[in-house]
Amino acid sequence: MSKFFSAKYAALTPYVPGEQPKDAQYIKLNTNESPFAPPASVVEAAKTEAGKLHLYSDPESAALTEKAAEVWGVKRSQVLMTNGSDEALNFAFMAFCDEKHPIVFPDITYGFYPVFAELNGIPYEKIPLKKDFSVDYQDYVGIGKNIVIANPNAPTGLALPLWQIEEIVKSNPNNVVIIDEAYVDFGGESCVPLIEKYDNLLVTQTFSKSRSLAGGRLGLAIGCEKLIADLNTLKYSTNPYNVNRMTAAAGFAALCEREWFEKNCAAIQEVRAYTAESLANLGFTVLDSKTNFLFAKSDKIGGKALYEKLKAKGVLVRQFNAPRIADFVRITIGTRAQMDVFLAKTAEILEEEK
Amino acid sequence: MSKFFSAKYAALTPYVPGEQPKDAQYIKLNTNESPFAPPASVVEAAKTEAGKLHLYSDPESAALTEKAAEVWGVKRSQVLMTNGSDEALNFAFMAFCDEKHPIVFPDITYGFYPVFAELNGIPYEKIPLKKDFSVDYQDYVGIGKNIVIANPNAPTGLALPLWQIEEIVKSNPNNVVIIDEAYVDFGGESCVPLIEKYDNLLVTQTFSKSRSLAGGRLGLAIGCEKLIADLNTLKYSTNPYNVNRMTAAAGFAALCEREWFEKNCAAIQEVRAYTAESLANLGFTVLDSKTNFLFAKSDKIGGKALYEKLKAKGVLVRQFNAPRIADFVRITIGTRAQMDVFLAKTAEILEEEK
Repeated sequence: MSKFFSAKYAALTPYVPGEQPKDAQYIKLNTNESPFAPPASVVEAAKTEAGKLHLYSDPESAALTEKAAEVWGVKRSQVLMTNGSDEALNFAFMAFCDEKHPIVFPDITYGFYPVFAELNGIPYEKIPLKKDFSVDYQDYVGIGKNIVIANPNAPTGLALPLWQIEEIVKSNPNNVVIIDEAYVDFGGESCVPLIEKYDNLLVTQTFSKSRSLAGGRLGLAIGCEKLIADLNTLKYSTNPYNVNRMTAAAGFAALCEREWFEKNCAAIQEVRAYTAESLANLGFTVLDSKTNFLFAKSDKIGGKALYEKLKAKGVLVRQFNAPRIADFVRITIGTRAQMDVFLAKTAEILEEEK
Repeated sequence: MSKFFSAKYAALTPYVPGEQPKDAQYIKLNTNESPFAPPASVVEAAKTEAGKLHLYSDPESAALTEKAAEVWGVKRSQVLMTNGSDEALNFAFMAFCDEKHPIVFPDITYGFYPVFAELNGIPYEKIPLKKDFSVDYQDYVGIGKNIVIANPNAPTGLALPLWQIEEIVKSNPNNVVIIDEAYVDFGGESCVPLIEKYDNLLVTQTFSKSRSLAGGRLGLAIGCEKLIADLNTLKYSTNPYNVNRMTAAAGFAALCEREWFEKNCAAIQEVRAYTAESLANLGFTVLDSKTNFLFAKSDKIGGKALYEKLKAKGVLVRQFNAPRIADFVRITIGTRAQMDVFLAKTAEILEEEK
C-alpha cells in the first residue's frame, strides 16, 4: 500500500478470481466457463467489428440494448448493458446502498458481495443458509434492508422458486432487492417478469455462462426505468464507453441464436446430471444444482486435499476455505469427455485414500 | 431518479460523451478518434481471440502488461491495464483522493475530472488557465494538494514541457500528481521516465487515439509499484476481468507495431499542420496543438453557430458551452480528404455570414 492510498480503502480485501495457471495445460473446471465456443455467427460478428476499432463503441449500446429488451420482453429503458455483470452489481451497490442503507445476503454466496459492500462503505449482514445449504426465503421477508441474492446461488447451485423471490420483493417495498441470475439459464426460474410489478427489483444476468462469452465481458441489469436511469447516471460518471465494439456485436449476435442457446443449456444440464449421478455413485454428497457447476463433498477426503490431488493430476476445480463448505469442491460442468477425465481422476484419488 | 438512489449521488451530473448521431452519415470530427483503422496484425489478433470467447480473459492481462512495460521502459509491476483510460483515471481519483485529500485541475480541461471528483465525494478546485489558454505550471508548484493535469491539455491542445511537469511533481511530494497523457503521442513530451524518481507521479495513457483502438477500450496507468498496487486493489474490488480477451490481444499486437505507430502519429501531425494553416488563412485563431485535434475560433462566427452550420452540412465538430471557450470549436484531425471537406464547408459558412 502506498502512503497515498485513501484510508477508506486501507482495509479492503479484494475479490480473488479462480486461478488461471500458466504453468501447464489443465482441464479447467474452476471458473464456471462454458466448455463450448460461441456459435459461428457470434464469432463472425465480433470479427467484423475488429476492423473498425478506431471508432468508439456506441456509449448507449443501443442496438444491443434494444435486442436484449426484445429477448427479455421488457422496454429498452429497463435494460443496462455492462462490462461483465460484476460492473452491473457494483453500480447497483453504489446506487442503492450507503452508510444508512445496509445490505444483507446469505453467508455462503458469491464472494464479491462483501467486497462491493466494503468498497462502497456499506454496512452488511450475512444471513446463514439453512443446514441443507438452501436460502430460507422467510429470513428476508419484510427485513427492511436492501438484499442481494444469487438465484441460483453460488457455490451451492441451489435455486429458490419464483414465488419465494416475489414474497421477498413484495414484502420489502422500501428497499431494493437485487437478484443475481448469473446461472439462471441452467434450470432456474428468472424473476425478470416481476419487474413490471415491482419498482424495487433489480435483476442482473451475464453472457459469460449460458452464452459462452466470458472472455468478451458482457452483463446486464434489468429493472424498472428509474432504477436503470440511476445505474446509467453512475455509468456515465465512471466509464461511458464501458462495452467495447466487438463485444457489443458478439452479444447482439448471441441474442439472435435462440436455438443454439437452448441446445447449449440443455447439453450442460445433461452432462451435469450424468456427473452428479457418477459422483453420487462414488459416495459424494451432491447438492441439487440448477447451474453449470456442481457442489459436492466426499466423506473420504477433505475438499482441500481433493482439490490439490486433482490439480496434481491436471484437473482444476475450486475449493473455498470457508466455514461449513471447506469440505466441498465446486466443479464446473465441462464436456462429457472432460467430466469423464475428472471422474476417473477422482475415482483414482479415492482409491489412493483407502 | 428513483426514490432508492443514494443521496451521495443525487446531485451528480454525469459526463456527456461527444454525440454519436445515428440519423445520418457525418464526417465525424467530434470525438478525437483516429481516421485510420488499426493495422492488419492488430485486427487479426483480435479476430483470433473471437473464437475463444467462452474462456475468461486473463485478469492480470499478463502478456499485455509485460509488453507494455517493455515498450514504456518500466517494470511490469509499474503498469495497470484498464478498460479505457477513464477507468484508470477513476481508480486514481478513488485511490488517492477523498474528503480530506482534495484535487485541483485547470478550469478548462477534460470534462470528466469534476465528474470523477463528484462521484467520489472529493472536494476540488479549478485553477484558471492563463489568458493564452496555457497551464501556468507555477500555479501548481508546492500547492500541497492532489493534482490532475491533461498534458497536452484538452480541448486546448496545448502542452507543458517535461521540466515544468517535473517541477510540479517534485514540489508536491506529499500529494499524488496525475498526468493524463491521452494525447501525448502527437507531439507532447511524456513524463513516464520520471516515475523512477518520484513515488507520487501517476501517468495515464490510452490506446484510443494514437493506436486507433477507441472501440476496443484500452488504457493504462504507469507509476511506482505501490501506486499501481493500490489501483490493483480497486480493480480487483470492482471488476477483475476488466479487459476482454480480444482487446488484450489487439493491444499486444498494437504495441508490436512500432513503425506503423510512428507513421500514424506523423501522418496526423502533418494533416494537423495543414489544417491549422488553412484555418489561419480563413482568419481563425488556432491554438498550437500537440494533439490529434485543433481548437480554433473565428471572429466572424460564434462557436455554437459554426458547430450547427457544419452539422447541417454533414460535418460534426465539438463545441463546449463553457465560459471563455464558447467561441471555439474542437476539430478532430481526420484524413486529408476529410479535412478538405471540413475546410471547404467552413469557407462556405464564412462566406454565407458576410
